[in-house]
Amino acid sequence: SRLQEIPCVINRETEVSCRREQSEVFVPFSFLHSYFEVYGQVEQKEDGREVFEWSHSYSRVYEPSGPYAPTGTFLNFELYNVEARERVKCISGRKVRVPISTQWQSSGYTYPIQIAQFGLSHYCKHLTEDAPQRQVVYLLSCVLQGLSYTNEVLSPYLHLSSLSFNWYTFFADITSSFSPFLTSTLLRGKLWVAFYVSAGVVVEDGDQHLGAWQVVGGSGRVTRTLDPTSRANILRFRAPESPSKGAVVLSLADVTSQSLLVVSLSFLAQGNASFSVAVEFRDKKTEVVTVHYIRSDRLLQVKDRQIYYGLGEQSGWRRITRNLLIDVHKAASSTPSLRKKFKKVSRSKLRLLSLTLSGSGSLTNVTVASAEHLHHFYDAADWLLRHQDQQGGWSIPVPRKVISGVLELGPGWYSAMAQGQAMSLLVRAAHHSGDPRYLRAAAGPQHSSPSTPQTVSGVRTYFPGGSVWYEEYPTNPSLFVLNGFIYSLLGLYDLKEFSNDDSGNSRALFESGMKSLKTLLPLYDTGWGSLYDLRHFTTHVAPNRARWDYHTTHITQLLLLASLDPDPILSSTALRWKDYMNGHKAKHN
Amino acid sequence: SRLQEIPCVINRETEVSCRREQSEVFVPFSFLHSYFEVYGQVEQKEDGREVFEWSHSYSRVYEPSGPYAPTGTFLNFELYNVEARERVKCISGRKVRVPISTQWQSSGYTYPIQIAQFGLSHYCKHLTEDAPQRQVVYLLSCVLQGLSYTNEVLSPYLHLSSLSFNWYTFFADITSSFSPFLTSTLLRGKLWVAFYVSAGVVVEDGDQHLGAWQVVGGSGRVTRTLDPTSRANILRFRAPESPSKGAVVLSLADVTSQSLLVVSLSFLAQGNASFSVAVEFRDKKTEVVTVHYIRSDRLLQVKDRQIYYGLGEQSGWRRITRNLLIDVHKAASSTPSLRKKFKKVSRSKLRLLSLTLSGSGSLTNVTVASAEHLHHFYDAADWLLRHQDQQGGWSIPVPRKVISGVLELGPGWYSAMAQGQAMSLLVRAAHHSGDPRYLRAAAGPQHSSPSTPQTVSGVRTYFPGGSVWYEEYPTNPSLFVLNGFIYSLLGLYDLKEFSNDDSGNSRALFESGMKSLKTLLPLYDTGWGSLYDLRHFTTHVAPNRARWDYHTTHITQLLLLASLDPDPILSSTALRWKDYMNGHKAKHN
Ligand SMILES: [Ca+2]
Ligand SMILES: [Ca+2]
Repeated sequence: SRLQEIPCVINRETEVSCRREQSEVFVPFSFLHSYFEVYGQVEQKEDGREVFEWSHSYSRVYEPSGPYAPTGTFLNFELYNVEARERVKCISGRKVRVPISTQWQSSGYTYPIQIAQFGLSHYCKHLTEDAPQRQVVYLLSCVLQGLSYTNEVLSPYLHLSSLSFNWYTFFADITSSFSPFLTSTLLRGKLWVAFYVSAGVVVEDGDQHLGAWQVVGGSGRVTRTLDPTSRANILRFRAPESPSKGAVVLSLADVTSQSLLVVSLSFLAQGNASFSVAVEFRDKKTEVVTVHYIRSDRLLQVKDRQIYYGLGEQSGWRRITRNLLIDVHKAASSTPSLRKKFKKVSRSKLRLLSLTLSGSGSLTNVTVASAEHLHHFYDAADWLLRHQDQQGGWSIPVPRKVISGVLELGPGWYSAMAQGQAMSLLVRAAHHSGDPRYLRAAAGPQHSSPSTPQTVSGVRTYFPGGSVWYEEYPTNPSLFVLNGFIYSLLGLYDLKEFSNDDSGNSRALFESGMKSLKTLLPLYDTGWGSLYDLRHFTTHVAPNRARWDYHTTHITQLLLLASLDPDPILSSTALRWKDYMNGHKAKHN
Repeated sequence: SRLQEIPCVINRETEVSCRREQSEVFVPFSFLHSYFEVYGQVEQKEDGREVFEWSHSYSRVYEPSGPYAPTGTFLNFELYNVEARERVKCISGRKVRVPISTQWQSSGYTYPIQIAQFGLSHYCKHLTEDAPQRQVVYLLSCVLQGLSYTNEVLSPYLHLSSLSFNWYTFFADITSSFSPFLTSTLLRGKLWVAFYVSAGVVVEDGDQHLGAWQVVGGSGRVTRTLDPTSRANILRFRAPESPSKGAVVLSLADVTSQSLLVVSLSFLAQGNASFSVAVEFRDKKTEVVTVHYIRSDRLLQVKDRQIYYGLGEQSGWRRITRNLLIDVHKAASSTPSLRKKFKKVSRSKLRLLSLTLSGSGSLTNVTVASAEHLHHFYDAADWLLRHQDQQGGWSIPVPRKVISGVLELGPGWYSAMAQGQAMSLLVRAAHHSGDPRYLRAAAGPQHSSPSTPQTVSGVRTYFPGGSVWYEEYPTNPSLFVLNGFIYSLLGLYDLKEFSNDDSGNSRALFESGMKSLKTLLPLYDTGWGSLYDLRHFTTHVAPNRARWDYHTTHITQLLLLASLDPDPILSSTALRWKDYMNGHKAKHN
């Protein structure tokens, strides 16, 4: 067919070159994409024919995969990759082994929402990912009323359910005699037990798995012994502090064939002892970068192909888990000279080459794994335990300008979303570990009183008519962010259900919040999408449309709530909002 | 250029045939039109080139043409053609000379909102249309303390400002000795005067303008005399009651060259006297229809090319104004056999042929005009005067199902919009006529008390938090229709400004209503359009998007209010809503 050019004048404002064929006019998709915010690309189908796939939305909804439980997965967080996000500077190597946010302050800070989501995402991945079963090795150190047990004692029980087993954790701080805070299901009521399980390949445990360490450049040395404090088998090393003058090296090449990029080890440094991991990056050209974990308070430094993460000044045994994919990726992102080359760092392009020890120290239980989700989960949970303040909150140390000059928060503000996400995480940690400290933290310092974490200073506001709202950003006037409010409700739900406390504050707060949600939810419905908040109502600016990924978050949240509460507004709104994603608008009058 | 066909798969739901040219894909507008609700057509420009004109909206905004005054034009109502609307069955010929609505009941009923809008539209047309000056003939009957004056007495003053003159009306009911209710500006404080002015061509006034009446078929007769009751010169006629047996006929062919289609006459029927107008319809084929105005309570009947409007059973002198364009159009619309042929009835295709009198009676002041806007204006105002009930309201006699089974109103409901539109009309009638009865009706039976018309039974509701709202449809739960509320505010504004009553109820109601509007207006903003009401908030159904003509009504209303109130929310919302009409959405987060 023959098509002619015809100019298309858009609202008397702009002109676009179109095509004409008989009575039909054809409009270029490049224009439609920006004018209507729709997405499309040519795709080749299985039968070879090419089609243009038009998507109204770039995002998708995740239906609940089963009944919701406060001890199970949290929404679709198994798909979250919090630490890979651009607004995460890196995972700190210092005492807080959590993401460092740069979202609202480029120098970096700890952001409780991000930390809780980081922990929740790893909890969900732990529950949903196929366990890398062929590589599971149970590595167990157990302290039982002062006695040390080896793998053999407990492994018969552990293999039954491997990674989904209900009662293992790693010891967070080996120096404080294993912090034995865990009541196991098996041994509940009788004994305290702390132990550590990895899904990785054990490359050194000072006992059954012995690494082929090589002393390079002369004066280095390794010995194996039983550590009297931890009652664990350990490897002691001595080498120059500067790797260029010699080191103790273990090749990892043999165990990296399957892209195992997460290294865990228990490490005790004397003085400036450090370790480093050499990583091969295979692209058009093969490069090697070395990631050093050193005694320093500096978060991250990069010098050419040498990357340095500071482990802080802390002394004593520490369990350290590093995902080299993340560590290389974050270093590359923060370094102009590396950014371009390492832009497309992916799991399949990286390979661990070796582990190098420098200076003097000890280590044990060295593993290489594809993931160590529970380590990250407890890192986040323990950060929340340590950083909860007197009123049960986690304040945010940086200012937040929602609308410059109109809606601003000074440093030290609280977020109901942070409180809620922390509750969801802590309830799961309480469930998984059996440690009552997590549940106490979730419930706040004065359980059942109005100063529980979810009502820390100023996060509670009211819509005209008295509907209560828990604010993600407690600005004045209020903002009424929808997704943050629902996260706070989910935290309250998790707490009330798990603690099963009918008279508790969490139940009352959840129920009044749900009432508000059902009352105000329609105000977020635009007839073709949803609103992120109600800033237009409180400050008279333009409505703040939710972009598609927040729209799908809304839907995913509503579908979850609909599974807990039969009020039809939850499911009918979710259904309608799903329709909007296919361009089906609400009817006009 | 060569384009290839490529299928476009829309959201995995449907497939549309597109065109591909290199990396660009072209989408057919016929699909875009229905998917996105955009409009377009090929237009030929002045230089001959063809362009495709794309409009996001089919409607347009009317900017205020000057400062608003309660005595001036009302929004853009001069563009309204209420009686031509499909939901108007016809203009009644009976005592109520107002549109008969079929919107919610097909048998027809009087709908105060429609009647007020009909009157307001004619008031605005009267103020804004160019006066058909070459055809203006002042026809004046004046009763001044019992004395009759001829044209010559007052016409020197009248010609100064012709149709925009402030103090003329027509006598509505000539039998009640001219209902002399008018205080003229000229004669204020001294005399009561009632008179009648037409912009039309006078074809018979029994005095200076004498029609060339022809007696057809034998026994007919015409005589001219001074009517002792009305002190007007009149024509008496006698003819068979059935036109086929003979009639008195006046050819109108000479005066219809300029599409004058509005016939006015003062008419006194004895028994079954009637008159009829023969109308030529020139299309491919020329047809003649005859519109009969007969003694009958039947609204409208059509028999082949004979159209019958009932004048009711009322005796005595009556002033009757009929727009033959509307009368033919409505008859054709209601009659399947005529509908197709007369579908495209337009002013330029019609021509009046003759006026025929049957039976015995009298008439005078027969004019043919292009329009008689003030007649319709006072018809509406007088209908409101006559039909106001004890509590100052105009109830609506038919049920209204907003959402079947959910939001329903039984017959006899009141509408704050009806009250407001009536106020706007009555204030203008008070201003134009000087008749204090109109202002008393606008203010309600108990001026300054809460039972003023604007607060008749149940039309006042409250949004959570206490914002008052005047309901177009007082359903339970509430509907919060935006445009109807603003119309009620405009009525209150007109009343408070015109009556200049600082302590009055209308001022308090207006001010609290404006406060509500500023509070709740953002809830109608979807970020790409506006909502018609808040049914989604009160009943949990889908939001009711305003179609583009209601969206532009919203904007037009807000621009007017912005000229009265400096609060930036009015102007900024109007500006943003105008942007939406060009596809400029509010930003997403
Ligand atoms: Ca693990
Ligand atoms: Ca007139």
